[in-house]
Amino acid sequence: MKIVIAPDSFKESLTALQVAQAIEIGFKKIFPDAEYIKVPMADGGEGTVQSLIDAWQGQSMVTEVTAPLGNKVLAEWGLSADRKTAIIEMAAASGLHLVAENERNPLITGSYGTGELIKAALNFGVEKIILGIGGSATNDAGVGMLQALGATFLDDEGKPLVAGGAALKRLSKIDLSTLDPRLAITQIEVACDVDNPLCGERGASAVFGPQKGATAAMIKELDAALSLFSQKVKQQLNKDIANIAGAGAAGGMGAGLQLLPNCRLKSGVDIILEATHLSKVVANADLVITGEGRMDSQTVYGKTPVGVAKTAKRFHKPVIAIVGCLRADYEVVYDAGIDAVFPIIRNLASLSDTLAQGRENLISTAQNVARTLKLKI
Amino acid sequence: MKIVIAPDSFKESLTALQVAQAIEIGFKKIFPDAEYIKVPMADGGEGTVQSLIDAWQGQSMVTEVTAPLGNKVLAEWGLSADRKTAIIEMAAASGLHLVAENERNPLITGSYGTGELIKAALNFGVEKIILGIGGSATNDAGVGMLQALGATFLDDEGKPLVAGGAALKRLSKIDLSTLDPRLAITQIEVACDVDNPLCGERGASAVFGPQKGATAAMIKELDAALSLFSQKVKQQLNKDIANIAGAGAAGGMGAGLQLLPNCRLKSGVDIILEATHLSKVVANADLVITGEGRMDSQTVYGKTPVGVAKTAKRFHKPVIAIVGCLRADYEVVYDAGIDAVFPIIRNLASLSDTLAQGRENLISTAQNVARTLKLKI
Repeated sequence: MKIVIAPDSFKESLTALQVAQAIEIGFKKIFPDAEYIKVPMADGGEGTVQSLIDAWQGQSMVTEVTAPLGNKVLAEWGLSADRKTAIIEMAAASGLHLVAENERNPLITGSYGTGELIKAALNFGVEKIILGIGGSATNDAGVGMLQALGATFLDDEGKPLVAGGAALKRLSKIDLSTLDPRLAITQIEVACDVDNPLCGERGASAVFGPQKGATAAMIKELDAALSLFSQKVKQQLNKDIANIAGAGAAGGMGAGLQLLPNCRLKSGVDIILEATHLSKVVANADLVITGEGRMDSQTVYGKTPVGVAKTAKRFHKPVIAIVGCLRADYEVVYDAGIDAVFPIIRNLASLSDTLAQGRENLISTAQNVARTLKLKI
Repeated sequence: MKIVIAPDSFKESLTALQVAQAIEIGFKKIFPDAEYIKVPMADGGEGTVQSLIDAWQGQSMVTEVTAPLGNKVLAEWGLSADRKTAIIEMAAASGLHLVAENERNPLITGSYGTGELIKAALNFGVEKIILGIGGSATNDAGVGMLQALGATFLDDEGKPLVAGGAALKRLSKIDLSTLDPRLAITQIEVACDVDNPLCGERGASAVFGPQKGATAAMIKELDAALSLFSQKVKQQLNKDIANIAGAGAAGGMGAGLQLLPNCRLKSGVDIILEATHLSKVVANADLVITGEGRMDSQTVYGKTPVGVAKTAKRFHKPVIAIVGCLRADYEVVYDAGIDAVFPIIRNLASLSDTLAQGRENLISTAQNVARTLKLKI
C-alpha cells in the first residue's frame, strides 16, 4: 500500500513536514509495511519557503536585504537541491512584521529588499523563481523591487524615485533597458490568489492599505499615486497593468511584476502542486492524506487541501484531511474532493496548550483514522 | 448492513438516546440504507434512569420521598414497558445535590427516601429493581433506606434510630422480621463499581465522607458508628458485612443492602448490558458504535464503552467509539476492544459553547467516520 501525505503547515504549531511526519507515525502503528511518501505542501502564503525546502530536500539560504524602512535585515529563501528553482517570500524582505507597529506607513515603505532577494536567486543561475507575495508592508507597486533589479524610475528632476508609495506621484520617466538581463531567461511564477485591480475601491490601497497602517487620507494619496504610475506605464511602455486580475496584490506588486519580461501570476497552490510534482506522486497512490491548521468554507478557495484533493481526484484516489480545527461551514470541501475530515483537538485547553499538543494530537488522530480504514465492515 | 449504536450519555450535554440519534443522523448521510439499532447505555451512574427508560421505551415515574435532611422532594425513577423491571437512582432521593452546600452534614443526612423509592417500585409488582447508588449525601449504612422498607432499628431506649450517620452509634437492636415481605421475591441488583470496605482508611467515611461535607472529626465519628453498626449486625444477624467488596459504597449503603434477602452488588455496566440485552443485539451486527462524554484510561474500569466493546468482541464485531473529549492516556482502551476512537471537538470554544455544540459535532464526526469506513483502500 502506498500512502501519500501532503499537508500544509499548521500555522504557529508545526511545519508541513512536521505535520506529515506526525501523520506517518500514527499510520505506521497500524500499517507498518505501507510505503509512505511525505510531500510538504503550501499555498504560496506563510510557510511556503519552509515547505518547498523540505519537499525539495533543498537548502535554506540567507541574504542581507533592505527592509521596508531602509534598514538592513537577514532574509531567508530557499533553493532546490538541483539549484534550478528558488522559492522567495516577499514578506521575508518586505514584510509587515519587519516594521514596528507605530512605524507602519505605506507612504514610505518600499519593496527594494524583495528585488534584492530575486537578484540573489539570479546569482545562483536558477531557471525558475517562485515568489510568494503575501504579508507585505508596502504599497509601492513593486517599484522598489524593480529598482533593485536594475529598472530606472526617475522623477521630474531626473533623480531616481525614493522609496515608498507616495514617491510614485512624482514619477516622470521609466527605463527598463537597464533591467538585469538574466530576467529574460528566468521564469518568475508569482503565487497570487486575489483578483483585485490596482486602483479604486477594490484596489490595493483601499483593501489592503489599512492593515499596513494607512489612514483614510493616506489611502487616497496612495491610490492616486498608483493610478499615476499605471498611466505612466501605459504611456511609456504601452502596457495596461491597472486592470489585470491581481494587479492590486501586495500593494500593487501584482501590477509592477508585469514589467518583468518573464513573469506570471498564478494560483499559489497550483504553483506548489507543480513544484512538488504532486500529480506524479499521487498517480499510483492508494490513499492521499492532506491537512491544514484550520479548515472551513474558505478552504475551497485556493487552499492546499483542496488543491491536493483535486489532484488526487484526477486519479480517483481517496482523500482524507486531518486538520487543526474545523469550522461549522466546512462541508463544502466534500464536493471539492475531500472524502472525510478529522479535527485533531481532543480536549478543551488554552490555545497555546492546544498548539503545543499539535504533534501528539496529530499522531493520535492519524492512528485512529488508520484503525478505521483497517476495519472490514 | 446492521449498525448498533450503544453510547453512554454525554454529561451536561446530551442523553444517551440523544447521542445515539445524532450518530445515526451522521451515519445515515453516508449509509442511508443500513439498519440502525439505538441502545442508550449507562454504567449505573448519573443518567442511568433516563438511559434505561429510553432503552426500554419505558416510562418515567415520579414519587414524593424524604430528602436527606427530612424535607419532601419529588424523585424520578423508571419502569420498563412490561412493568417487570424498575430503575432507581439513589441520588434522586438521597443525593448530595438535594442538600445545600452549607448544610451538608453526613452525621444527620439519611437514606430514607431511597427506601421509599424501592417501596414505590414494589407497589408496581416488579420482578427486579436496578439500583444505582452514586452521588449520595448520606453515611448511614443504608439504615434509613432499610427503615423505609420496614426494618426495625432501635436505640438503647427502645426507640427507632433517628436519621443520620451519627445515630448508628446508639444502635441496640435490629429486627428484620418487619421487612416488607415482597423483598423476598423481588431481585435487587445494585450497580456498584467500587470495592471499598465499610470502615477504616479505605472505608466509606474516610474516602467518600469529605465530598459529603464531613470534617476530620466527623469522619472519625462516622467511621466508629459504621464499625459499631457492623458489629451489631454480626452479633444479631450473624452476617459479616464490613469487609465485602463495595460495603463502603454510598456511605455504607453497600453494607446495609446486605440485610435485604435478595440483593446483590454488581458492576453497573454489566447490569445495564443485561437490562438492555445488548449481547443479543450485537450478535448479528456489522458494526458497533459506542461513546461517552470523556474517555481516558479510567474508561477501562467499568465504564460503558468498554462494557459495550467487550460484549461486541465476544462476537468479533468492529467497535468505534465517538467521544466528547479524549484524554492523553486513553490508548489502553484499544486492548479493551475499542478499535478506534474519535473526539467530537472541532474548535476551541468555551465549555458551555462546546457542550451546546455537542449534537452538531456528533453528527459531523459520525458522518466523517462513516465516510472513512466507506472508502475502499
